[in-house]
Order: sequence, then structure tokens, then C-alpha cells
Amino acid sequence: MATPDIVKARNRVRSSQPLIQCITNTVVQQYTANVLLAVGASPAMLDHEADAAQFAAVASGVIINFGTASSQQFLAADAAIEVAVSAGTPWVLDPVSVGGVDYRTSRIRAAARRNPTAVRGNASEIAALAGMGLGGRGVDATDSVDDVIGAAAALSSATGAVVAVSGEVDAIVLAGPDGRSAQVVRVGGGHPLMPLVIGNGCSLAAVTSAYLAAAKSAGLPITGASALEAVVAAHVHFAAAGHTAAQTAQAPGSFAVAFMDALYTVGDAELEAVDLRFEPTEVPA
Amino acid sequence: MATPDIVKARNRVRSSQPLIQCITNTVVQQYTANVLLAVGASPAMLDHEADAAQFAAVASGVIINFGTASSQQFLAADAAIEVAVSAGTPWVLDPVSVGGVDYRTSRIRAAARRNPTAVRGNASEIAALAGMGLGGRGVDATDSVDDVIGAAAALSSATGAVVAVSGEVDAIVLAGPDGRSAQVVRVGGGHPLMPLVIGNGCSLAAVTSAYLAAAKSAGLPITGASALEAVVAAHVHFAAAGHTAAQTAQAPGSFAVAFMDALYTVGDAELEAVDLRFEPTEVPA
Amino acid sequence: MATPDIVKARNRVRSSQPLIQCITNTVVQQYTANVLLAVGASPAMLDHEADAAQFAAVASGVIINFGTASSQQFLAADAAIEVAVSAGTPWVLDPVSVGGVDYRTSRIRAAARRNPTAVRGNASEIAALAGMGLGGRGVDATDSVDDVIGAAAALSSATGAVVAVSGEVDAIVLAGPDGRSAQVVRVGGGHPLMPLVIGNGCSLAAVTSAYLAAAKSAGLPITGASALEAVVAAHVHFAAAGHTAAQTAQAPGSFAVAFMDALYTVGDAELEAVDLRFEPTEVPA
Repeated sequence: MATPDIVKARNRVRSSQPLIQCITNTVVQQYTANVLLAVGASPAMLDHEADAAQFAAVASGVIINFGTASSQQFLAADAAIEVAVSAGTPWVLDPVSVGGVDYRTSRIRAAARRNPTAVRGNASEIAALAGMGLGGRGVDATDSVDDVIGAAAALSSATGAVVAVSGEVDAIVLAGPDGRSAQVVRVGGGHPLMPLVIGNGCSLAAVTSAYLAAAKSAGLPITGASALEAVVAAHVHFAAAGHTAAQTAQAPGSFAVAFMDALYTVGDAELEAVDLRFEPTEVPA
Repeated sequence: MATPDIVKARNRVRSSQPLIQCITNTVVQQYTANVLLAVGASPAMLDHEADAAQFAAVASGVIINFGTASSQQFLAADAAIEVAVSAGTPWVLDPVSVGGVDYRTSRIRAAARRNPTAVRGNASEIAALAGMGLGGRGVDATDSVDDVIGAAAALSSATGAVVAVSGEVDAIVLAGPDGRSAQVVRVGGGHPLMPLVIGNGCSLAAVTSAYLAAAKSAGLPITGASALEAVVAAHVHFAAAGHTAAQTAQAPGSFAVAFMDALYTVGDAELEAVDLRFEPTEVPA
Repeated sequence: MATPDIVKARNRVRSSQPLIQCITNTVVQQYTANVLLAVGASPAMLDHEADAAQFAAVASGVIINFGTASSQQFLAADAAIEVAVSAGTPWVLDPVSVGGVDYRTSRIRAAARRNPTAVRGNASEIAALAGMGLGGRGVDATDSVDDVIGAAAALSSATGAVVAVSGEVDAIVLAGPDGRSAQVVRVGGGHPLMPLVIGNGCSLAAVTSAYLAAAKSAGLPITGASALEAVVAAHVHFAAAGHTAAQTAQAPGSFAVAFMDALYTVGDAELEAVDLRFEPTEVPA
């Protein structure tokens, strides 16, 4: 993959203002909505089963996160995913706390089998979803990103999704069509205060959906290299904003405010300053 | 209508501390509660169907918003509205995203037929509820305020409610008893950052309920001119706070913080500086 | 009780990072999660009835608050409490708005009979739960802390819980084994802006659970004097952060941000500067 044009990708989000249907946990709905607005997208948290499919048909992207899912939300997600898949609308799975409890895990695994465009989680979640780890205990990452690159590649190969592993250095992984090799893009710049603001991971998944939706409205495919680029660009946007916020804030309350500001004001130079590394890996047999 | 005494109206809210029952979407519950506290009201987000009617009987005002309504919330709203109407307690409908999806729309329309004291939405929502527009796509306003003054007047005539249309310049509309003419009050001072903070519209609906409740506890009628004045005063309070916040904040994270502060600290001169214009309009046949 | 070592207690929370299962109202989930992260704990808002018991078995502490409880949340709470009690995991009841409405009140009373480790509420809630008051109207305290010390002592005697009454000066009450005398610890330093930030009370209950969980993981009993100390320490942490926040913030928006920062940065000297008073009381017959 060539170095992606992050600035162009961000501009696409701002100009297309993608409408993102968020079926997500109630803890982070407000934060996620504000994050989407800050990057130029338009949030809608519609999660009633009676209306979810109809809304998914007009949404530009969908994000699914079962962090506090009610039975109604599970039904709404089923309906929205079905529409998104058949319409070719990008949908992103955030497998929060997969592996920790049985019922939620079964629902997340079922969703993962339905062709998500991207999956974003922390190292423990990605390992658990790939079937190789013990799962998180809450929303913590107890595994490290480096430990789960192989798991991420296997998950990408099994689902077709771009798989993003969040950590101090993020890893974005896409298995190749041969099923044996995978590309890995490392996005640096994570800050220790980021995990102390609840919803940063969940809202990054939503922004990932917005970047994929903007790519699609520009006529780009949301598979292969251009999907990988869109996911990387979303992560770069977050990393750049985190870097900016850390210049002025040293504690989580003021960091959250500065981060939201920085998502909105992020300039070209800040995006281009984020450290990107490209490396290949193998998909474990 | 004479120029309303906004300062007196704000003081009434602070001294009566109206208890506002908010059956509203989970995205904005926290923000709405903080906004109500900042203006001097007391929030209660009670939305269980078993208790909603009993609580509505002691509430000073009710606000209904179906943005993420569960089946339980719909039942709770039915019960609370019935009590509010029969007790003469002001209740405000925020028809968020009406017209976008069928089930929610049917529930909003049913609620609108139950004598809301006021309805507050963006231009697309007001047009959709009045049956003249195509509805919003999410919480965006795709129509302009000017486009929907006639629709707002028709909605006011049909429901008896004061109808508030939020935009860069808000329009507050009340149809006269003859059903053909309507008063329109324009409240200036909206700021481009306001729509980038999720919950500003929903919490304005809650504050509108607080101003109506405070008017009622002062012995004023919550129909006709004094209802119109209370709704205008709530919008002026928001506009003044937005103006103050914009003096110090240029991005949505810090704007939200400054806005909350300004709702709390807003002074007499700031309220009186908000631009108000009065004009008549006709109710479309 | 000797003066508790608040610094050591805070350090225990930071080093043990207790995982706190929060079955709490949707208004304050985000704020509570951020507060738990700021003090060094790990939040999980898991509230689905299918998974609640399984998760409670791995949680370090549980907090129950029925502020917006759905029927699903009531079932989840039943399951989580049962596991917590049989595993000896500390669980804290926040009886928000008990006494105001019948169904919620019946559920809160039923929970209170299941051996909570601590109960935290405002004066009206504690009085109502003890059966001696008229209950709150929303989340307001209409009684004063001083009025309800006897009620708190009776509630402590009846349930075995440490009972914390929040107010400008908090009172933490523990009835002795004789059922007639009780210890009272007063924690000063509350600030008038604290009740204007929604979720401060609910999140204090969650932090109380974190302090109890940290005590337990250090091998301390979570009954008697060491439970009392843990509850006091949580309240001191809050009071110190409130005091720090009030140095820079004069309105609720910026106060909430400064308070979150201060929870995270709170130093030894700030904790030790909080005013503590010890006094005995009697349990009313």
C-alpha cells in the first residue's frame, strides 16, 4: 500500500458528511455523537428494532457495539447489519468485551460472521474474537498489540474485514486474497490519557465507519487497499488529535475537552506528522 | 405581544426550581440534566412505564423526545402525557427525526395530537410533523427556518401548541384563535458551533418546559401570550449563553463547557442583548 | 475508629485497579465510567440479565442504582447482587429517588434487604429508605444531613451496611454490633457546585465500591471498621477533588472538567487536608 493521503480522506468526510447509524452502548452514545460531529459526520443513534432496517437503508455507514445491548438493541443490530450488507454500506463491528461473558460473546461472534467491513477492538478483544485469547475483563486490554498481530490477520482472513487493534501504537491489518499474507500498518501517537476517557475506542470505531462511508461516496471500493486506507486515515485523525490534546492537557477531564476540540480543528500538518509504518505479516495456519 | 420580560422569566425558573420529568433519548440525558441544573431547574429522567404516571403527577413539567425510545419509554410517555394533560402540567414535544422512519414517526404523530403545550424541533422536523416536508435524515436540519414558518403556523393551529423552530435564527410561532393568523417571534444569536454539541436542541426543549412550568407556578396561563413568552424566554436564555460561550471557545469541546457555564451565569444584560423581532404570518389553508 | 489512612486507601485503588460492575442509570453511565477511570478503577456497565451473574463473578465490586432502570436492568441487578453476596464481593446500593414512586421504591427496598456492603444517598433518600421520611422529589435532597443521622443509624443497624449520607458535610454511619450505638464520621468540604453536576452522587457510590474492593484485595474485611474506613476514604477523595476544582472553576461546566482532573491528580496533602470529625450516635429504637 502506498502512503495514504490522509488529508484527502479527512476532507472527504467533511464534504460528504456521512450519516452514521450507531447501535452502540449507552455509556458512550453522547461522546460518540460529539466525536462524529467534530470530524464532520452526522450521527444517529437509532436502535429500535421496528425502525432499524429502514434507517440503515438511508445511512451512509453503520457501527455496532454491544457494550450495554438490550434485547431490543440486538434485534435492531440484526436488522441493520442485514440491510448494510445487502446494500454494500460499510459497517464496523466493535466487539467490546467479547470473551468475557457468554451471551454477549455469542452475539458478537454471530455478528462477526456477517461480513463486517472493519472490526476495531483492543488487543484482548481481537484475540478473543479470533479465538486465540482469553478475552478482556472489562474494556481493558490485558494483551499487547504486538501479541495479537497474528490473531488480527487470522480474523481478517476469516471475515474479510480490515482489523484494527487499538493500543499505544495501533495496528491495522488486512489479509491478502491468498489467505496467507497480510499487510500491517502501524499508527503511532497514542497517549496514556486516551484510555482514561471512556468511549475513545467506541467512537474511533464510529469514525472508522465515517471514513469508509466517505470513501464509498467518492466512488472508492470499501474492500482491499482503499478500505485499509480509510481505516488507517480514521486512526491517524484520532492519533493526531490525541497528540494535540496532550500539548495542553495533563489530566483526563481537560484532555477529553481538548481532544474533542482537536478532532474538529485538526490541520493537514498534524495529520501528516503522525508516525506510520508498513510491514507485512503472515496469517497463522 | 409586548416585549417579554426575559429577566423576570429567568428569575422565576431559578426561584421555583421546577421539577422536569424528561422522557428523552439516552444520548442526551446527561447533557439535558446538566442544562436543567444550570438554569435552576431540577431534572428527573424517570422513564419506566410502571412509575411514569405517578411521577408525572408531581412533576412541574414534562418533556418527551423519542430519539432512542425503547418500547418501555413509549409506554412511559403515553402515561406521563395523559397525566400532564389532565393536570394542566406543561408538556413539550421534541419530535426528533420525525418523518425519517415509520414506527417512530407514528408514535410522534400520536403524541402531537395530545395537546402539547409546545413543540420544538428543527426546520425539517417541524415541516415533517406538519405534514409538509420530507423529514430529516438524522438530527440534521435540511430545510431552513424561513421555509417552514407556514408549516409551523399550521402545526400550531392544529395542535394548539407554541411551535419553536430552531436554527441560526429561531422562530417561535403561535397561531391565533381565529386559526388564520399567527404571531412569529424571531430569536437571533445562534452560533455555528451550537449544532456541533449533541443535545443542544433536546435540552432546549427541556428548558422550554422549565420556563413554562415556572410561568404556571407564578399563576400565569400556559396558553396564549404567556405561553409564547415563556417559550421565547427559554430560547433567549439559550441564545445569550451561546453568544457568551462563543466569546471564549472556537471548537465544540470547549464550547460545550463554556456554554454550560454561561447558562448558569447568564446576566440580565446578556439576556436583554439578544435580538428579538416580532412579525405576523398567516396559517396556510 | 482511628483516623483512617486515606493516602494508603487511595494507593490501594490505584494499584489493584478494581473492576466495578455498574448497573446504573443511563444518565450517569458515562460520567461514572470516567470517574472510576480517574481514580484508578476499571468500569464495566454490563447490565444484560443474561450475562450479569457471570460478570459479577469476576467483578471486584458492584454498584446498583435504579435511576432509569428498565425491566432488564432490574433482572440483571437481582442476578448480580446474588452473586456478589454469595462471593463476598462488596456491593453498594445507591437508592436514588427512593420513596418518590412505588415500583422503583419496592425494588430498591428489596435490594436493601440483601446485605449491601454500603448504601449511599442524599438525606431524603436515606430517610425514605429507613422508613422515616417522605422521600425525594427527584434527585434533590429536601432533608438535611443532620436530620437523618438517626435514620442512617437505623438503616445501618437493619441492613449491616455502612450508610453514607451525602450533603455539604457528608455523614458516614455504621451501627455497632450491639444494635444501639453507631459511629458517625463527618467528611467536610462539599461545594455548592457539586450537586449541579449530574452524576456526582451516583459516581461517588461507584467509587465507594472501588475503595471497598481495593480493601478486600488487600485482605481487609469489608465489614466493621475497615469497611467504614474504605467508605470514608472514598468520600474524602471526592471532597478533596471538589475543593481543588473549586479553586479554578466558578460554574458547573468548567467545574465538572476540573473535578474530573482533580480526581485523577489528587495528592496526599489534599487528601489529608479534608476535614474529618468523629462522633458517636444512638440507633433510634
